[in-house]
Amino acid sequence: MNKHLLGLKDLGAEDLLSILKRAEQFTHSDQESHLNVVVHKGTFVTNLFFENSTRTRFSFEVAQKRLGLNVLNFQESVSSAQKGESLYDTLKTLESMGVKAAVIRHSQNGILKQLESGLNLNLVNAGIGNEEHPTQALLDMLTMKQEFGSLQGLKVAIIGDLQHSRVLRSNYYGLTKLGASLILSGPEEYKPVDQEILGGCTWLPMDDAIVEADVVMMLRIQLERHREQAVGISQTEYHQKYGLTEQRSKFMKKEAIIMHPAPFNRDVEIASSLIESPKSRIFKQVTNGVAIRMAVMERVLCSTVDEQGTNSKIKMAN
Amino acid sequence: MNKHLLGLKDLGAEDLLSILKRAEQFTHSDQESHLNVVVHKGTFVTNLFFENSTRTRFSFEVAQKRLGLNVLNFQESVSSAQKGESLYDTLKTLESMGVKAAVIRHSQNGILKQLESGLNLNLVNAGIGNEEHPTQALLDMLTMKQEFGSLQGLKVAIIGDLQHSRVLRSNYYGLTKLGASLILSGPEEYKPVDQEILGGCTWLPMDDAIVEADVVMMLRIQLERHREQAVGISQTEYHQKYGLTEQRSKFMKKEAIIMHPAPFNRDVEIASSLIESPKSRIFKQVTNGVAIRMAVMERVLCSTVDEQGTNSKIKMAN
Amino acid sequence: MNKHLLGLKDLGAEDLLSILKRAEQFTHSDQESHLNVVVHKGTFVTNLFFENSTRTRFSFEVAQKRLGLNVLNFQESVSSAQKGESLYDTLKTLESMGVKAAVIRHSQNGILKQLESGLNLNLVNAGIGNEEHPTQALLDMLTMKQEFGSLQGLKVAIIGDLQHSRVLRSNYYGLTKLGASLILSGPEEYKPVDQEILGGCTWLPMDDAIVEADVVMMLRIQLERHREQAVGISQTEYHQKYGLTEQRSKFMKKEAIIMHPAPFNRDVEIASSLIESPKSRIFKQVTNGVAIRMAVMERVLCSTVDEQGTNSKIKMAN
Repeated sequence: MNKHLLGLKDLGAEDLLSILKRAEQFTHSDQESHLNVVVHKGTFVTNLFFENSTRTRFSFEVAQKRLGLNVLNFQESVSSAQKGESLYDTLKTLESMGVKAAVIRHSQNGILKQLESGLNLNLVNAGIGNEEHPTQALLDMLTMKQEFGSLQGLKVAIIGDLQHSRVLRSNYYGLTKLGASLILSGPEEYKPVDQEILGGCTWLPMDDAIVEADVVMMLRIQLERHREQAVGISQTEYHQKYGLTEQRSKFMKKEAIIMHPAPFNRDVEIASSLIESPKSRIFKQVTNGVAIRMAVMERVLCSTVDEQGTNSKIKMAN
Repeated sequence: MNKHLLGLKDLGAEDLLSILKRAEQFTHSDQESHLNVVVHKGTFVTNLFFENSTRTRFSFEVAQKRLGLNVLNFQESVSSAQKGESLYDTLKTLESMGVKAAVIRHSQNGILKQLESGLNLNLVNAGIGNEEHPTQALLDMLTMKQEFGSLQGLKVAIIGDLQHSRVLRSNYYGLTKLGASLILSGPEEYKPVDQEILGGCTWLPMDDAIVEADVVMMLRIQLERHREQAVGISQTEYHQKYGLTEQRSKFMKKEAIIMHPAPFNRDVEIASSLIESPKSRIFKQVTNGVAIRMAVMERVLCSTVDEQGTNSKIKMAN
Repeated sequence: MNKHLLGLKDLGAEDLLSILKRAEQFTHSDQESHLNVVVHKGTFVTNLFFENSTRTRFSFEVAQKRLGLNVLNFQESVSSAQKGESLYDTLKTLESMGVKAAVIRHSQNGILKQLESGLNLNLVNAGIGNEEHPTQALLDMLTMKQEFGSLQGLKVAIIGDLQHSRVLRSNYYGLTKLGASLILSGPEEYKPVDQEILGGCTWLPMDDAIVEADVVMMLRIQLERHREQAVGISQTEYHQKYGLTEQRSKFMKKEAIIMHPAPFNRDVEIASSLIESPKSRIFKQVTNGVAIRMAVMERVLCSTVDEQGTNSKIKMAN
């Protein structure tokens, strides 16, 4: 069993299913007392966010506090990062203070892999560069599994700003291992360049992708990169050409669902009216995010317990 | 019973008295165990501050933690607000994570009223534009009630930077419903423009206001707006003309008290020596602020329980 | 017994030994339940950091939460400090909210001494100007005591950027009271100017200091002040002339240890390879920091209980 959660690339189908199953249990109850949570109450964990994301940080924080953990939050702007301290030194310091797991968001690819071996602290990837964002993909998969029972044979269309998308990459690794197939679509300019992913997915024109898919997952246009324009056209034009418009949604299969890893740009990649429409699972994804992060935190913390050979699993009191 | 606490304009006298009574209980004990607190321990609430105010945020945070709540704090500078996400989407996301109430400070008038109907989450106004700041007025009213037993017939002078004051507005709605009358004074340039408020209060020259009032409430000059000067005169001149000087305080009634919604500018709107003088209730206001916010958080959270018809009221363990 | 912890200058040898002894107990267990912790669970404390230091703030936060305290965190950038509020007014406000102790980091010398008498709240110095950083020196002393049993007769070399070092000052006051002697070394330009300290320590050339010392404590070059260069030479040259190189470390006594109040600049004041070498106690210092801060928080909070004459010491439940 992996000690860290660095990405879905390295996890097997069994690991994935085990996380999804445990998360499913957490969605059925906020009475954690019934679930034999095996983390020590009061264990210290930290959320180190070197990119802003209140949404993801809050999701982890809710998950951690529901497990009874003590949470230390860190944002780059208020850090000794300014003094040039390396991430390794920061983590070794936190480990020495008694912190057992670090949830990390960072813009730099590969940064966690470098650290993997030197630390006793467990690492959780909360979005690294354009590499992976495994808890996002896991919550996506949980949402699909709740809907369709199994991922086997499912057709998942991922549409939009794909080129630098860590959400796509994690979903690719996770979904294909559980038997789903991926359709990609959107502007040619945003097509991924990674040959492994291109080879393992089917690229379709927008309208074909919509018709084929059981799941239509729209990705956010990263407007902070592209400014007012996306791929050289206005937001309105983008919406017409590559967005999930109300019109286009009518061509979706009867049982198909709409997903989106928020935050979304209303009326750019998705029509505002669709966000809370019957087909949408967008806010259910957010709810599932907490459950997934509970399962992930429990998993990495308990691997520590196991490795130390101590028999210190304790049921969490209410 | 209102689900949100958006302002005092919409609350009846009975609601106001019920909040004041509950807050009074909280001031008598920090043994919340004796008070049959009816919120679930561990319920998640969030403080979303889009304007800086450590003072008010800490007051809410102490209140929330004394009630046993789990607190998520958010400051605009570290938020996805930068990605242009709307407040509605942020709140819907937090609601989906299981957050039950959001305390919001924001510079934009009307922003909470727009959200009122679409959310299951309960909203608490912690200062909105120049509209209302209801918990400040409630703590002011609690302080007066402790002093005089009743607000009926009380003369409350509110003096200073009135034009854009949400503190004035909330006090106006609250105090007049409980039978107090308001005297306003200060520079003509800072006179409120709202006809309802002007019509419902008495405008007096500075020295007359001081002599008449049972309560002298000085408002902070918002120096960050006015720079070094206030109404075209220096801070020293302002103090002499419109401030509560030591000399002026001698003309106050024997039983009258001094109040101020901190932070204050010493020796501008109020003489530094008066801040901890026997007539001052300024720091008692701060103490009462925690009790008021406990009562308010309990109130909005319990309305949820009621509406869902669940019989899940639980006494808070110590 | 002192109510505040402002510095080691004012503490006697007995006070120092009592804090070290209590901290030693905290290092042996994370089962605080066995240690008769005498602070009230749920007591509110605040960390007010007017200079950035995630490391020190986290260390206090872990200590406080292990004691069962409620923690309010404050960073200058999100504070009413911007509205020109004085530190006294901030602290009086927090005291009125029920906060019992404030841990303060600030760049201004003397700021805590001015506040000492006016407040009921207890103050803890977390690094003030170039005055003192008492918890850092206490954790240094604990680390030495663990190693050598006693500080009596110990030779401690403190080397590097000494001129403005509050770490040096606190170590000077603490170590000399417990019978250790101090050797100073480093660039002449960084020599302290304080005559008391210069008179009480021995200034030696770099290589002599290394040979003589039982403890070699390297201080961080404050690169944020000195930019790319330190004392007019490159970082590489600095390392060769004044750093603890691998070569130099071979001349240390057999039992001598290496210390550093992190964060460190690898290969500037200390060779990167030495940081986790057998002689290094650098991360043990971090671990000890939490224990020292637990002892200090308990001490200042219990002095309150004592002074109020209430018999309210309560064993902390698990």
